Amino acid sequence: MTQPPLIAIMIGDPAGIGPEVAVKALASGELAGVCEPLLIGDTGVVRRAAAQGGVGLPIETLNSVTQLVRGPQAIRVLDPGGFDVAGCPFGQASATSGHAVLDWIRIGYELGAAGGIQGLVMGPVDSDSLKQTGKMPDIDALQPDGTFMLRLAAGLRIVPLSEHVGLVQAIALVTTERLLHVLNLLHDHLTKWGVAKPRIAVAGINPHAMFAEDRLRIGPAIDAARARGIDAHGPIGPDTVFRMALDGRYDAIITMYHDQGQIVVKTVGFEGACTVYLGLPYVLLNVPHGSAFDIAGKGVAQHLSMLAAIKTAANLAAGRGIVLS
Amino acid sequence: MTQPPLIAIMIGDPAGIGPEVAVKALASGELAGVCEPLLIGDTGVVRRAAAQGGVGLPIETLNSVTQLVRGPQAIRVLDPGGFDVAGCPFGQASATSGHAVLDWIRIGYELGAAGGIQGLVMGPVDSDSLKQTGKMPDIDALQPDGTFMLRLAAGLRIVPLSEHVGLVQAIALVTTERLLHVLNLLHDHLTKWGVAKPRIAVAGINPHAMFAEDRLRIGPAIDAARARGIDAHGPIGPDTVFRMALDGRYDAIITMYHDQGQIVVKTVGFEGACTVYLGLPYVLLNVPHGSAFDIAGKGVAQHLSMLAAIKTAANLAAGRGIVLS
Repeated sequence: MTQPPLIAIMIGDPAGIGPEVAVKALASGELAGVCEPLLIGDTGVVRRAAAQGGVGLPIETLNSVTQLVRGPQAIRVLDPGGFDVAGCPFGQASATSGHAVLDWIRIGYELGAAGGIQGLVMGPVDSDSLKQTGKMPDIDALQPDGTFMLRLAAGLRIVPLSEHVGLVQAIALVTTERLLHVLNLLHDHLTKWGVAKPRIAVAGINPHAMFAEDRLRIGPAIDAARARGIDAHGPIGPDTVFRMALDGRYDAIITMYHDQGQIVVKTVGFEGACTVYLGLPYVLLNVPHGSAFDIAGKGVAQHLSMLAAIKTAANLAAGRGIVLS
Repeated sequence: MTQPPLIAIMIGDPAGIGPEVAVKALASGELAGVCEPLLIGDTGVVRRAAAQGGVGLPIETLNSVTQLVRGPQAIRVLDPGGFDVAGCPFGQASATSGHAVLDWIRIGYELGAAGGIQGLVMGPVDSDSLKQTGKMPDIDALQPDGTFMLRLAAGLRIVPLSEHVGLVQAIALVTTERLLHVLNLLHDHLTKWGVAKPRIAVAGINPHAMFAEDRLRIGPAIDAARARGIDAHGPIGPDTVFRMALDGRYDAIITMYHDQGQIVVKTVGFEGACTVYLGLPYVLLNVPHGSAFDIAGKGVAQHLSMLAAIKTAANLAAGRGIVLS
């Protein structure tokens, strides 16, 4: 890739802090040479955020990504139109905002799938706005089909085999086939992103990984992955694998259920946990904070998480490895 | 209690570092006024450890705890006899050592049950020595019947509802009755130990504690405990409850399965995790390290964990609260 990757940023709920942290990140001056950023959202919302956040960059509206001209610093907004910022007070969930967000997300996903962008950062959405559209049972429905979520937090990289399913069901989902699929997916992504010969640890299901199902379900997947040249290890005791990774012995961990890794992520690495999706042709990444309706429109929102997310998306898309920024 | 509590220390495997760290802890001078310590083990093993560790205190043998005379600093050993230190080289597991350890543990448990001591600290045992006796299927069998294990680590106090059982079975063990029993037990122990009005958090089973079984099995136990005046809270999302406790919102956490808490204990609080048993009339506590056969007999073993364990046992027995020492 000879020029910096094109990274789209979906601005998030228009009534939240998403638009503000997005324009502040673009105005930080830290993205020059790292990526070509492009907002997806409503130009009026972006203008309002720039005014609130004290950002003076020129703002350009694009109707299509093909109109994008790389060049002097500006805030470029891919805007499908149809949203009225005057009817969107700060800090209030609404079906109108929810519909707009779903539209912007769809545009981002389609652009990513078509190769029009190399990365997409999802600004903070609001679950109430989404629910009010009647189109979204819960926020989990935003996860693209067939993807797995890699968390980057506290120096760890963690992929659970399942997300918000009950623990009994999660254990049933631990099959040799599913684990081997995720081992392949994680290995291939890490390699593409620039991690040479990634060392992947697989946690056990049970205490000290010492029960029959640890051996019988996890063991064969690790054997098959190693036969393919993947540097896979396990099953490792769930209560020791994270310390081993923090001590530098593994580049990533596959966990057997949601909380196994999330307990560590939220206890140790409370700040700055990013989520990257495995299984897409582009880098899709969530900003690790909410829409913070309580401080929206006050110009005080902190943009460092958004900036880090954009940089991470750019670094992965450019194959520069997982750089902790 | 007008005089310091009588705390027995089982010296651990005679071929390991247990005897050495025990005599070093007693010679540290830091236990004066904190407790009256009493070793349980073999006098010859203790003499050898004192010589190796450069400890010059007088060593007295007792045949019964009733012979104990509190007084000037000395190492007092309750010794049932019958062990030959000459046949016990450092760093080797043996059935002879295993039998001796089981005997010393039995003496400690009986003394505790009879009220002869206020606390018992278990020095590091060796699982191979114990297995070679043919009496011990695994080290879990040392846990006194009907007890639950409270871990003190990284500023957290954690009690799992089960230990080394498979995760599916552990989930089945999460019943309203069992949880209510542990809520009562934990509350009563913490109160007795000097924690006024302990705030107890109960983790959920499933992601974000948002499934039916979280409400149906955990909810009623919390309601019943609160009706009894226990300051119980939950079910709380398993991935947020530990951070909340670290931030000072709870004094203790009941976890629904072994790894839920052990993942935090071993990732965050790797050093110095103590285990205290709930459900006994005395304070029973394990030293958080092994018998370290590789450095036994070299005089280089670090005694700070043993010293902290003895102080913790004394503080709990005296109702001084959970003092992090």
